[in-house]
Amino acid sequence: MVEVLKVSSKSNPNSVAGALAGVLRQSGAVEVQVVGAGALNQAIKAVAIARGFVAPSNIDLVCIPTFADIEIDGQSRTAIRLAVEDRSHRHASTDGLDPSHAAPAPVVAAAMPAAAVLS
Amino acid sequence: MVEVLKVSSKSNPNSVAGALAGVLRQSGAVEVQVVGAGALNQAIKAVAIARGFVAPSNIDLVCIPTFADIEIDGQSRTAIRLAVEDRSHRHASTDGLDPSHAAPAPVVAAAMPAAAVLS
Repeated sequence: MVEVLKVSSKSNPNSVAGALAGVLRQSGAVEVQVVGAGALNQAIKAVAIARGFVAPSNIDLVCIPTFADIEIDGQSRTAIRLAVEDRSHRHASTDGLDPSHAAPAPVVAAAMPAAAVLS
Repeated sequence: MVEVLKVSSKSNPNSVAGALAGVLRQSGAVEVQVVGAGALNQAIKAVAIARGFVAPSNIDLVCIPTFADIEIDGQSRTAIRLAVEDRSHRHASTDGLDPSHAAPAPVVAAAMPAAAVLS
């Protein structure tokens, strides 16, 4: 099961990047879930930063955006899921090649350790 | 030279997805440049949609976000560049593994043909 980090519009991209890099190095893949343009903005900045963090470990970080239907307070919302992984990584659950929207998946972790905060 | 599409917060994700899919099929790679959270939101939605468009052509679409310093009306702004390409594609100019921000690159095309609009 791929770890899922929830990122909000208030998340610090550097902190998220550190968390992404940590999970990536450990398990080879991680997912980021966001709802809204502000949250997506922080998440993509984090991915761009994390790319530099993991490059020395020979990880060529790529990201694959897909739609996900989630429920917030009983209301159906469309979230964006970013599968973040090494370019050579293959994982069925992050493939998302089905043109229909991805099925809702349980969120297993929303922890956001403030690892590796840049000055 | 990789074609660069500029996407704004008013861009239609389906139209952008059609344009991305067209360039991808022709040349194997395309870049999207955005400034601001709203524009990034439309661009990432377009990438998620385009992934479904090109999957039948056996293209496993991935995207690689990097920062880019650009000039708008003489003012320096930070844009986000999304390199959109097949997972197996390798291209020096889209590598972006340098942790320092990418150098400004000339924008060669901002055309946005309204191809393949979903119903």
